[in-house]
Amino acid sequence: MAQWVYSFGANGTDGDSSMRNLLGGKGSNLAEMSGIGLPVPPGFTITTEVCTYFYDNDHSYPDSLKKDVAAAIALIEAETGTLFADAENPLLVSVRSGARASMPGMMDTVLNLGLNDDTAAGLAARADDIRFAYDSYRRFIQMYADVVMDVDHGLFEDVLEDMKRARGIFDDTKLTGADLQELVGLYKTIVEEEAGTAFPQDPWEQLWGAVGAVFTSWMNTRAKTYRRLNNIPAAWGTAVNVQAMVFGNMGDDCATGVAFTRDPSTGENSFYGEFLINAQGEDVVAGIRTPLPLTTEARRKAGGDELSMQEAMPDVFNQLDAVRIRLEAHYCDMQDLEFTVQQGRLYMLQTRSGKRTAEAAIRMAVEMADEGLISKDEAICRVDPLALDQLLHPTLDPDAQKTLLTRGLPASPGAACGQIVLNADKAEEMASHGHQVILVRLETSPEDIHGMHAAAGILTARGGMTSHAAVVARGMGRPCVSGSGDLSFDEVSGKIFILGTELSEGDILTIDGSNGNVYLGEVATIQPRMSDAFATLMSWADQARRMRVRTNAETPADARVAVDFGAEGIGLCRTEHMFFDSDRIIAMREMIMAADTEGRETALAKLLPMQRQDFMSLFEIMAGLPVTIRLLDPPLHEFLPHSQDELAEVAKASGITLETARQRAIKLAESNPMLGHRGCRLAVTYPEICRMQARAIFEAVCAIAKKLGTAPIPEIMVPLAATAREIALCKVEIIAAADAVMAETGQKIDYLIGTMVELPRAAICAGELADEAEFFSFGTNDLTQTALGISRDDAGAFLHHYADAEIYPVDPFVSIDRDGVGALVRLGVENGKAARPDIKLGICGEHGGDPDSISFFEEVGLDYVSCSPFRVPAARLAAAQAHIRQKS
Amino acid sequence: MAQWVYSFGANGTDGDSSMRNLLGGKGSNLAEMSGIGLPVPPGFTITTEVCTYFYDNDHSYPDSLKKDVAAAIALIEAETGTLFADAENPLLVSVRSGARASMPGMMDTVLNLGLNDDTAAGLAARADDIRFAYDSYRRFIQMYADVVMDVDHGLFEDVLEDMKRARGIFDDTKLTGADLQELVGLYKTIVEEEAGTAFPQDPWEQLWGAVGAVFTSWMNTRAKTYRRLNNIPAAWGTAVNVQAMVFGNMGDDCATGVAFTRDPSTGENSFYGEFLINAQGEDVVAGIRTPLPLTTEARRKAGGDELSMQEAMPDVFNQLDAVRIRLEAHYCDMQDLEFTVQQGRLYMLQTRSGKRTAEAAIRMAVEMADEGLISKDEAICRVDPLALDQLLHPTLDPDAQKTLLTRGLPASPGAACGQIVLNADKAEEMASHGHQVILVRLETSPEDIHGMHAAAGILTARGGMTSHAAVVARGMGRPCVSGSGDLSFDEVSGKIFILGTELSEGDILTIDGSNGNVYLGEVATIQPRMSDAFATLMSWADQARRMRVRTNAETPADARVAVDFGAEGIGLCRTEHMFFDSDRIIAMREMIMAADTEGRETALAKLLPMQRQDFMSLFEIMAGLPVTIRLLDPPLHEFLPHSQDELAEVAKASGITLETARQRAIKLAESNPMLGHRGCRLAVTYPEICRMQARAIFEAVCAIAKKLGTAPIPEIMVPLAATAREIALCKVEIIAAADAVMAETGQKIDYLIGTMVELPRAAICAGELADEAEFFSFGTNDLTQTALGISRDDAGAFLHHYADAEIYPVDPFVSIDRDGVGALVRLGVENGKAARPDIKLGICGEHGGDPDSISFFEEVGLDYVSCSPFRVPAARLAAAQAHIRQKS
Repeated sequence: MAQWVYSFGANGTDGDSSMRNLLGGKGSNLAEMSGIGLPVPPGFTITTEVCTYFYDNDHSYPDSLKKDVAAAIALIEAETGTLFADAENPLLVSVRSGARASMPGMMDTVLNLGLNDDTAAGLAARADDIRFAYDSYRRFIQMYADVVMDVDHGLFEDVLEDMKRARGIFDDTKLTGADLQELVGLYKTIVEEEAGTAFPQDPWEQLWGAVGAVFTSWMNTRAKTYRRLNNIPAAWGTAVNVQAMVFGNMGDDCATGVAFTRDPSTGENSFYGEFLINAQGEDVVAGIRTPLPLTTEARRKAGGDELSMQEAMPDVFNQLDAVRIRLEAHYCDMQDLEFTVQQGRLYMLQTRSGKRTAEAAIRMAVEMADEGLISKDEAICRVDPLALDQLLHPTLDPDAQKTLLTRGLPASPGAACGQIVLNADKAEEMASHGHQVILVRLETSPEDIHGMHAAAGILTARGGMTSHAAVVARGMGRPCVSGSGDLSFDEVSGKIFILGTELSEGDILTIDGSNGNVYLGEVATIQPRMSDAFATLMSWADQARRMRVRTNAETPADARVAVDFGAEGIGLCRTEHMFFDSDRIIAMREMIMAADTEGRETALAKLLPMQRQDFMSLFEIMAGLPVTIRLLDPPLHEFLPHSQDELAEVAKASGITLETARQRAIKLAESNPMLGHRGCRLAVTYPEICRMQARAIFEAVCAIAKKLGTAPIPEIMVPLAATAREIALCKVEIIAAADAVMAETGQKIDYLIGTMVELPRAAICAGELADEAEFFSFGTNDLTQTALGISRDDAGAFLHHYADAEIYPVDPFVSIDRDGVGALVRLGVENGKAARPDIKLGICGEHGGDPDSISFFEEVGLDYVSCSPFRVPAARLAAAQAHIRQKS
Repeated sequence: MAQWVYSFGANGTDGDSSMRNLLGGKGSNLAEMSGIGLPVPPGFTITTEVCTYFYDNDHSYPDSLKKDVAAAIALIEAETGTLFADAENPLLVSVRSGARASMPGMMDTVLNLGLNDDTAAGLAARADDIRFAYDSYRRFIQMYADVVMDVDHGLFEDVLEDMKRARGIFDDTKLTGADLQELVGLYKTIVEEEAGTAFPQDPWEQLWGAVGAVFTSWMNTRAKTYRRLNNIPAAWGTAVNVQAMVFGNMGDDCATGVAFTRDPSTGENSFYGEFLINAQGEDVVAGIRTPLPLTTEARRKAGGDELSMQEAMPDVFNQLDAVRIRLEAHYCDMQDLEFTVQQGRLYMLQTRSGKRTAEAAIRMAVEMADEGLISKDEAICRVDPLALDQLLHPTLDPDAQKTLLTRGLPASPGAACGQIVLNADKAEEMASHGHQVILVRLETSPEDIHGMHAAAGILTARGGMTSHAAVVARGMGRPCVSGSGDLSFDEVSGKIFILGTELSEGDILTIDGSNGNVYLGEVATIQPRMSDAFATLMSWADQARRMRVRTNAETPADARVAVDFGAEGIGLCRTEHMFFDSDRIIAMREMIMAADTEGRETALAKLLPMQRQDFMSLFEIMAGLPVTIRLLDPPLHEFLPHSQDELAEVAKASGITLETARQRAIKLAESNPMLGHRGCRLAVTYPEICRMQARAIFEAVCAIAKKLGTAPIPEIMVPLAATAREIALCKVEIIAAADAVMAETGQKIDYLIGTMVELPRAAICAGELADEAEFFSFGTNDLTQTALGISRDDAGAFLHHYADAEIYPVDPFVSIDRDGVGALVRLGVENGKAARPDIKLGICGEHGGDPDSISFFEEVGLDYVSCSPFRVPAARLAAAQAHIRQKS
């Protein structure tokens, strides 16, 4: 039979920190501290399994629970020498929630539980302190009524304020015992009026009320939202911690405080924290009194003159400092502590791994490894790869004033502010005059790329985490908020509306692409900086990883950024992005409008030198490294203009009538472009395009080899293949181009021909494909779209709902769907390797920059991941973590 | 080492009819006839492997081939007592192509090869017949020059006509030997002038020229087109048959003819054929002289007075009749024969399985089984299931005059003619006034359904075999030609253009949906009829098959047709089609425009009684049978109108502003609707829709059970699920509705809840899905779209090219792609059965009516297939054939 209740205390502790799943974070750490002999007030934890039982059984409890809780209370009574519900010498307890992961949004704490009219009187008599007893009681009523009985806590505040006003005082502490007794009466009346039932006087009823409130709060809206945002499964459940009260507010030999074993903001190895004399924990948080520093040094730094804890209570401080060192050595990690001093005696109320900034995380990890506290592998695993984004992009000043307008998806990290512009040309123009602009669009398309490049940030109304805007912005390192559904446009007036706010072009917005927030006006930002510790950690990561990390880049600027960030080649160069420049698009459109192969070849001949030049610029940066170049991928209609005027220009340039151009455009239009005439289907139907691109690549390789003595190794990638024959047909063209260029230049070119595995059929038939392909690059964006049947451009309408309903707990475009898409990748790897044991395997979808996905790619044995330039450091770190985990 | 040449003849035969792949159809059957002692002129076959070698090796031959051919010629010389290239006693041969499958479009025949100025003189002397020798020679020159040297044969005809005119005669046979000698001279001059080289006098050069021409013709455009249309791989190659000439034109004891062992048109067991006395084979075909019937009975029936072969050459006829009986008994199938009588001696030149009408195929199969010639299983396998379409739909009168305008895809079988109308409303209106109309559209959408129903046939410019038009038309049994790319529209003038022809509304077109042809004006049609033999064969098929056959239907009319055709339930009832009726679409649009759940529920309450009524009509027909009902599937925007005026109406009806309606419509619009907010994603986000549909189904079941005492067993199908959880969420709604309706009516309802497996993820994770689903119906249309990444609406742009390039030799939307999509189906079956051994498995994609695919579904062990009503007989037959094949 399951054990539903785990006690901790001086007389015996059932649990320890390894039982986090069962006891929650708080409960398991209380047990751990108690177990290693630290001063913890006795208590017990009701397990997360009870929470699961509670939801599986219509909000009821296991049969034995009442008995178990009563027994656990008895243990507390024995240790404290008090009695629960006893008027003479009452035991008071706190009740706290405690899930596996820290979860703001749930019921947090009820203090002083056990007080009623009798026990309050008894407490007053025993402590000889009416003020203390009734202050505790009135606080308890307010807390309990708020969280258990759903009475608005503002009502209590109002009564308190009224009384203070009537007494002519400003400070709660100036209220007398009699005042507080009166207040308790008033509070009880409020409860009765609001809840329709009297405040419960039975401590056991109070206890079960509080326990039920904790479990119920697991499913409140805030908790659910938090879980969704943080990928916490609802099935985990929460535990409940019941613990004997200790009081920091019984006089000047009492205190309460919070501390971090190292500085959570910088990572510096110094004791960091705050405390208040004669106060309860909530006073530290509430900010009515200003907490004081723990250490003398911190006080001096802050220039304060009130005594630090080190000065005011040197003995207790030394005890606490010893606990600090003990806990860090025990947990081998920076701890976030809560403590209370009751009449000169220290009690530890909580320890947990402390939250920290990315900068601090890196510094602590490196220093702890240097101190020998943890291994290098452990140091590598200590830093959240995604947190590196904080270091690479400007962030909003946390102290700055902000007016939040709305939220969208955190599509590309970093903060940016600038003037609103509604189209790409305008963005480019304004940027050229030195303005910072935010490009605001319904959604973006390849035509907007120059504007996106010119903009400081991008905001779109439509599109998910892997929409065009998101992908391109990440590639460029531009902050982007996408899919901001509250945003609407009035194109005639050039105005945008965000909920109630009307904005015009030129108005200022600030976006935070790291969390999706959109703010009105300018919000101060902090520029990124990279520390020595960062360099050290990354070098350790590079030594520890197996997989290579490449980047997705097609512009020299992006390629350079990526190399600076440690990219070891290009995993995806999307050649189509090269065709959107204004001089290229004309020839491109001419090619599209051509009536026959000859016409297309004429237009392609104009594109060849430009494309060759593009590759040369890129190859110069990538000399000696592998560069995967994807042949033209998007359907041709993406290159056509949308307006009739522009189409008329295209017609004129192509020497055809507008009507013919229109007919051609209509013929090219597609119902589902994602599944249309694109990818290698273009190369198969128009081999001349493939021929031109292959020639441009090989000519560029030869030119760079001649110039630098070394060239990149091009890996030419056939996109969207579903059959071996498609690859074979493209290979004919590519090999012919290579042979021709080698003959013309007399240079030997090393190159590979492979394919992008991005269709389910390709993964299933990977063995067949591997007969033709020397490498596979898994295109997990399209593979996710096709395997799951979800268009990432249209997913916004339901994917949020799907996350709430736990259908896809994590956005499958952000983190790979292991069971479905992952199974296909695995199949592709197995079949591919079986057919060609030395096949090179990589991944170039957005998942290449996602740590969870990288972990999966390590498992299945890919050779490299490729991601956008700004994700390269995160990918290097994640790859190292994945390999370390895989080894163990 | 490969044997490149196979001889046949009285002195030894290397091959037999089992070597069809190597020797081609003609060659293997010549060998077979020779082997069983029938009178076949000696000859040899150059294998199809030589053809493959020829294309793999830059149009060259294997080293030993010359030698082998010379040896084979020597064998013919030995048997015939003649010598090749010998002036005294020349051996003449025919050279014919012969692929595995009969292939019009390739080089057919060169006769009389071996003749030159010397051998012609020798032949004349030996036969003592100058006329015969030079008639043979001039025919040879013309044929050879045409097919080998690419000289226009019209030039020879002109010279011949000139001479006849000069001589004042009409009949070739009236030309004298001298005339023909002169003609030979003129012909040689033509060759020299046109080909720039003299007509080859060396018989060996002639022979190799003809052999090369056969191999070259394998890759000519007509042959390639034919192969594409008939799914014949280019890799098969053709064989070449070289055979001693026999002459039916050496006098009145000579004749030539073609025969069928049974009547190929009706299937009647009577000798059927034609012959001509003193003629070569080409004369029978050319139609210059009218051939005569073989049998006396046939002559009498035709009312002719010239003697039949039975009367004119009773001995030879009896020999031939014996050969007929021998061959039918030997091949156990109706044979198509070619024969020649040379100076009273019968020679068999060809036997092959004879082409027949569907009606004849059925009658022969049934009668042969009754005669004991073949088994019932064999009889079942003898009839091409797709040929049954001929019996169920009107067909074009083969004798009618036709003006072919263009061709499209044979999207839905049957012929129809009527007046052109360009929109659905007009079609409905004109049909209501008794006009036959052909609805001509760029493409169709669900809004056009009433017009499609009203039309006699449908013609579209866009869309493949599984486009909306094609699927709906097949479902309705309306002939349809889709994807007719030569068709363009001028919407302003209401005109259409087909290549050069301009047509207006009201003009008459005829379409043949069985082959995709579009004809100008009215072409006479023949109405379908079903014979007793048909009923017999179908009853045998029903006994022989394992899989059930259901139909895809949602209207009572379709359901009734399907039941009449033997459907054993409904495998797919697409509920959305029920919402397009004019009274329903209003409530549907109101639902879509609603701002919240309450608004949607109000609109859905209006739809409930209509939907219930729809189901009642359907269930009444299907009482006692299973009916699979798919929950609402298409994205909601499909129900919205396209014009602003109509949208204004919708806004008004919904009580919202046009602007709000417009915004809602914009919000609903999707980039890739196929991968959008559809399928169970609708039910998950708007559970009230699912709730209404489930209630309508269960209420209808109860009503019908009450009325008839028996009801259908509804199988409620959750579409587009990729996860178990989606099904689970829908199940909650469905079960609640069932429980509620059972409580309200007091009736017990049997039902199943299952899902449509139409996404790769669903197939891969089928085990997990089977935990929730009691049945799977494989939706292979969407599974093909997603697995291959091909939108069937957009595939027209490249799928033809893909067929030509042998990437997908068969349209994967017509016949299942076994390696890719099939592998997913297999995975789905295996995983599904592993998780739920009694899971019911069916298929409701278009492949459910395709014999090849049905064969695959038998292999993987599905329980049933479901197809459009008119395909039900074909599916029953195909399922039987598949099971018979599977057993053996």
